[in-house]
Amino acid sequence: MSKTIELAQHLEKLHINNMYKSDFYWTWDKTDEELDAIFTVADALRDLRERNKSTRIFDSGLGISIFRDNSTRTRFSFASACNLLGLAVQDLDEKKSQIAHGETVRETANMVSFMADVIGIRDDMFIGEGHKYQKTFMDAVRDGYRDGILEQQPTLVNLQCDVDHPTQCMADMLHIIHQFGGVENLKGKKIAMTWAYSPSYGKPLSVPQGVIGLMTRFGMDVVLAHPEGYDVMPEVEEIARKNAQATGGSYKKVSTMEEAFDGADIVYPKSWAPFAAMEERTKLYQAGDQAGIDQLEKKLLAQNAQHKNWSCTEEMMKRTRDGKALYLHCLPADITGLSCPEGEVDNSVFDRYLVPLYKEASYKPYVIAAMIMMSKVKDPAAALMAMDASGKRKSF
Amino acid sequence: MSKTIELAQHLEKLHINNMYKSDFYWTWDKTDEELDAIFTVADALRDLRERNKSTRIFDSGLGISIFRDNSTRTRFSFASACNLLGLAVQDLDEKKSQIAHGETVRETANMVSFMADVIGIRDDMFIGEGHKYQKTFMDAVRDGYRDGILEQQPTLVNLQCDVDHPTQCMADMLHIIHQFGGVENLKGKKIAMTWAYSPSYGKPLSVPQGVIGLMTRFGMDVVLAHPEGYDVMPEVEEIARKNAQATGGSYKKVSTMEEAFDGADIVYPKSWAPFAAMEERTKLYQAGDQAGIDQLEKKLLAQNAQHKNWSCTEEMMKRTRDGKALYLHCLPADITGLSCPEGEVDNSVFDRYLVPLYKEASYKPYVIAAMIMMSKVKDPAAALMAMDASGKRKSF
Amino acid sequence: MSKTIELAQHLEKLHINNMYKSDFYWTWDKTDEELDAIFTVADALRDLRERNKSTRIFDSGLGISIFRDNSTRTRFSFASACNLLGLAVQDLDEKKSQIAHGETVRETANMVSFMADVIGIRDDMFIGEGHKYQKTFMDAVRDGYRDGILEQQPTLVNLQCDVDHPTQCMADMLHIIHQFGGVENLKGKKIAMTWAYSPSYGKPLSVPQGVIGLMTRFGMDVVLAHPEGYDVMPEVEEIARKNAQATGGSYKKVSTMEEAFDGADIVYPKSWAPFAAMEERTKLYQAGDQAGIDQLEKKLLAQNAQHKNWSCTEEMMKRTRDGKALYLHCLPADITGLSCPEGEVDNSVFDRYLVPLYKEASYKPYVIAAMIMMSKVKDPAAALMAMDASGKRKSF
Repeated sequence: MSKTIELAQHLEKLHINNMYKSDFYWTWDKTDEELDAIFTVADALRDLRERNKSTRIFDSGLGISIFRDNSTRTRFSFASACNLLGLAVQDLDEKKSQIAHGETVRETANMVSFMADVIGIRDDMFIGEGHKYQKTFMDAVRDGYRDGILEQQPTLVNLQCDVDHPTQCMADMLHIIHQFGGVENLKGKKIAMTWAYSPSYGKPLSVPQGVIGLMTRFGMDVVLAHPEGYDVMPEVEEIARKNAQATGGSYKKVSTMEEAFDGADIVYPKSWAPFAAMEERTKLYQAGDQAGIDQLEKKLLAQNAQHKNWSCTEEMMKRTRDGKALYLHCLPADITGLSCPEGEVDNSVFDRYLVPLYKEASYKPYVIAAMIMMSKVKDPAAALMAMDASGKRKSF
Repeated sequence: MSKTIELAQHLEKLHINNMYKSDFYWTWDKTDEELDAIFTVADALRDLRERNKSTRIFDSGLGISIFRDNSTRTRFSFASACNLLGLAVQDLDEKKSQIAHGETVRETANMVSFMADVIGIRDDMFIGEGHKYQKTFMDAVRDGYRDGILEQQPTLVNLQCDVDHPTQCMADMLHIIHQFGGVENLKGKKIAMTWAYSPSYGKPLSVPQGVIGLMTRFGMDVVLAHPEGYDVMPEVEEIARKNAQATGGSYKKVSTMEEAFDGADIVYPKSWAPFAAMEERTKLYQAGDQAGIDQLEKKLLAQNAQHKNWSCTEEMMKRTRDGKALYLHCLPADITGLSCPEGEVDNSVFDRYLVPLYKEASYKPYVIAAMIMMSKVKDPAAALMAMDASGKRKSF
Repeated sequence: MSKTIELAQHLEKLHINNMYKSDFYWTWDKTDEELDAIFTVADALRDLRERNKSTRIFDSGLGISIFRDNSTRTRFSFASACNLLGLAVQDLDEKKSQIAHGETVRETANMVSFMADVIGIRDDMFIGEGHKYQKTFMDAVRDGYRDGILEQQPTLVNLQCDVDHPTQCMADMLHIIHQFGGVENLKGKKIAMTWAYSPSYGKPLSVPQGVIGLMTRFGMDVVLAHPEGYDVMPEVEEIARKNAQATGGSYKKVSTMEEAFDGADIVYPKSWAPFAAMEERTKLYQAGDQAGIDQLEKKLLAQNAQHKNWSCTEEMMKRTRDGKALYLHCLPADITGLSCPEGEVDNSVFDRYLVPLYKEASYKPYVIAAMIMMSKVKDPAAALMAMDASGKRKSF
């Protein structure tokens, strides 16, 4: 029996009916079984691909991508995922578009969604804005379908908003599951999500938020650490706490990187911007106050520079379990001595974890494809079994 | 019997042999039956899509798009249409291209048309230039095919030139047909194509020209209204007059928006630039006289501002039949109080017609797909019947 | 028996096992039989296309393109080739990407290669850099596959580096073969690869290098001519000399365009930059010395201007065999009196050869497709025969 068949049989047992035709905003909108389904389908699609089996569920169709912030990894992951399932990608490049000044999101949403099967949106630049944009967009296409404008209702894959980065964190998590040999081995493992110094400014909070919102669901001891003033959104912390209670794990905050790293099985040191400052920045942006934004940037860079000791050095790594914690990063990292004089991580640490880091990233296309498949196929287990049984090859 | 079969049976009766391998420049190049065929195929493709039937006529192939002006709606419509039929889109971004200074259109045309099935071109910026570019381009690929350079002859879909905007106007017309329950109900209906004030400048004339050139073919009373100096191309007015005579409808010009709106069943208030000024602008552009262009722009904006009362207000709408004329726009509109202080249409009017407006736009991908299909498939009725009968699904 | 079957039977006799899963950097890495195979498959794919046969070897899959220099012809050729075989193209636009300052090529290579089947790279701007980038990139994806990061190993098509431009020169050569009625007719034919004046600056050396490195393998008399200081890379000249010895042809350098053109059967007059100056430019670039680069540009333009008599005029053409040598160019050309006051070629000469020039270019998509097919299909002869026998059509 192939791995795909085993996975499909597991999938059959899960309660996943609500996923069909649903959007993927945040991992905490989904049940444990629904997340399990995503991981299961991701693994099955990879297995099929490795065995040169066709995994097309679409004969034609479009995946629309909207990147309101630069992207390489996620852009290529979305493109790969769409292609894997048979969709072509049409990118909305707002610079080349005739999006009128004052044009509503409702109008744009309908205009780019003719015949769209899936919408992928990255909008992570401004606290309080990213998710709102995605929600407004998807409400508009739901109405558009109801009103007979769109002949079908496309579904959303959140490619990063201001609150969560689910395709990243699900890929991170699938990597952890494979590295530790299964979810059942994660109980009691310590994972440290920590802030780290970077010479750049204003990185989104969606990764740390996504990590504490997701990783607290697997019985692990999740520790968040950051300098004073770098808090994440309190709503997400609340979710992390509730998750931990429900799964027998724990969630706590500590105030030094050292404490977070002590005995950790997994570490995720990464720069992000202070929440309060990001809120201030959104207000300045809405007011069109560029001078204020520039001044804030200066202030934040100076504030960052006070915390250069928050770096994943060799010394810091020695504090982790046997000095060998699994090092995670969403990439690209600011690497001390390679991409900047002082950054998030020592070059020697980063280099030692290169292969697992790239593997971590390699799960993202499959996670995205699984999200699409779960939202577009009513009986995904049957679809996987049909793909496994089919003689249709991916390539000659 | 499915709707598609009914439509295919209607298609069988039409004289459409000249459409195979032909280009689509202007609606007035086509016979009534040929336009009927486009509408029929557009409706059939939509029906098939809604029933999850595969509508691919291409196993592989390329649709080349060239947007010499910004575009969202038409860009996505062309992409959707190509995808619906099985073509991939390759966009010629002139900024990223190594199009040499002085490179001839003939050379570019051949170089981007290797293996191209369809060419979609938008070139609407300069009076006297847009159509010329399309014609030169298509003559070059015809010669390229004849000379054995291209292994097939791609066909054109005019995605807007300086003279006509056929994919827009055909979508507008299909919308009207569905709103009024069939072509047979249009006899004697009054449609007002009127200029409207917008704070922007230099909008193409191709929409009003396309509208009067097309809508005069269905027995309607077509009225064109604009302030002094905002005439459209006289050649197109001549076509409108002849069309009206041939179909028992009428075409006339009036000098106020009020008169145009009085008792109208359909209104299409929209800004455009004065023809004479656009001719002047083309000359300045050809002479490389940027200062002259800037000065002209200033003059035109001042001229525009004298006609702010040309706006589709609630008051104006009350003049139409039962105050409930069908409001049309090619989008995006300049909406008073939403996208600008004073514009083409009151926010409350626009908002009331939002669903029909978006539906109007939603026909464009199907109209484009129908144009492609008619030019690439020798027996489109048979193709539709085969799609209807086939078990091949659009998605799993 | 179809032409494709004949070609497939020829292919069966060639020793081509090493091509499967291999990269295409330079023509001189490949054996004569391997190049023969490329030409054979290119011709077969064109024959199949002309007979409306499906040539898809991929049900899904991605061709990644990276153009570090502008491109139209090669961009569209790569897109056509990928589409012909069933691949979608995903372009890495470095400007839109989140490629971090200091991000390694190794990281980028892995991040954009998830599920990639083929990588096409143009990097021709800096001597000593282009090939290095491609090699580093492909070493990284090979390691990525070995380490389980990538689920398959993509192969390279060099779309132009600082050393060779194999897709161009192979297309040029296939054009020559067809013009002269077969490889067997090329023995003793004289081909002149000569420098020509252009008002622009810094054109890559990869075309003249590629030409002398490839054309010396067919028993022809290859002559290179350029003004003093415009030498090409000595390593490539060494390859040209060895090739000529092995095939009974000849390779020599002369110092005037006249001598090169005298009695030539084929001429390829084209501008390129002086090798030594390009080396200097690379150093200035690496040092970030923009002022130095600007000064060098000025110097080189002045140096170029001393050689305006190196132009493919009507007079010059009269020196060739019967005044009718086959004129080649990779396009776009700098055409005297059309795209510039003084350039590489007289307008009347260029115009007379327009059809053969465009045909020359038209082989590139098929050459690229053949390179991809040879590297991705274990038994390409069987694949061609299957395509020929199949009832699957390219379009309805």
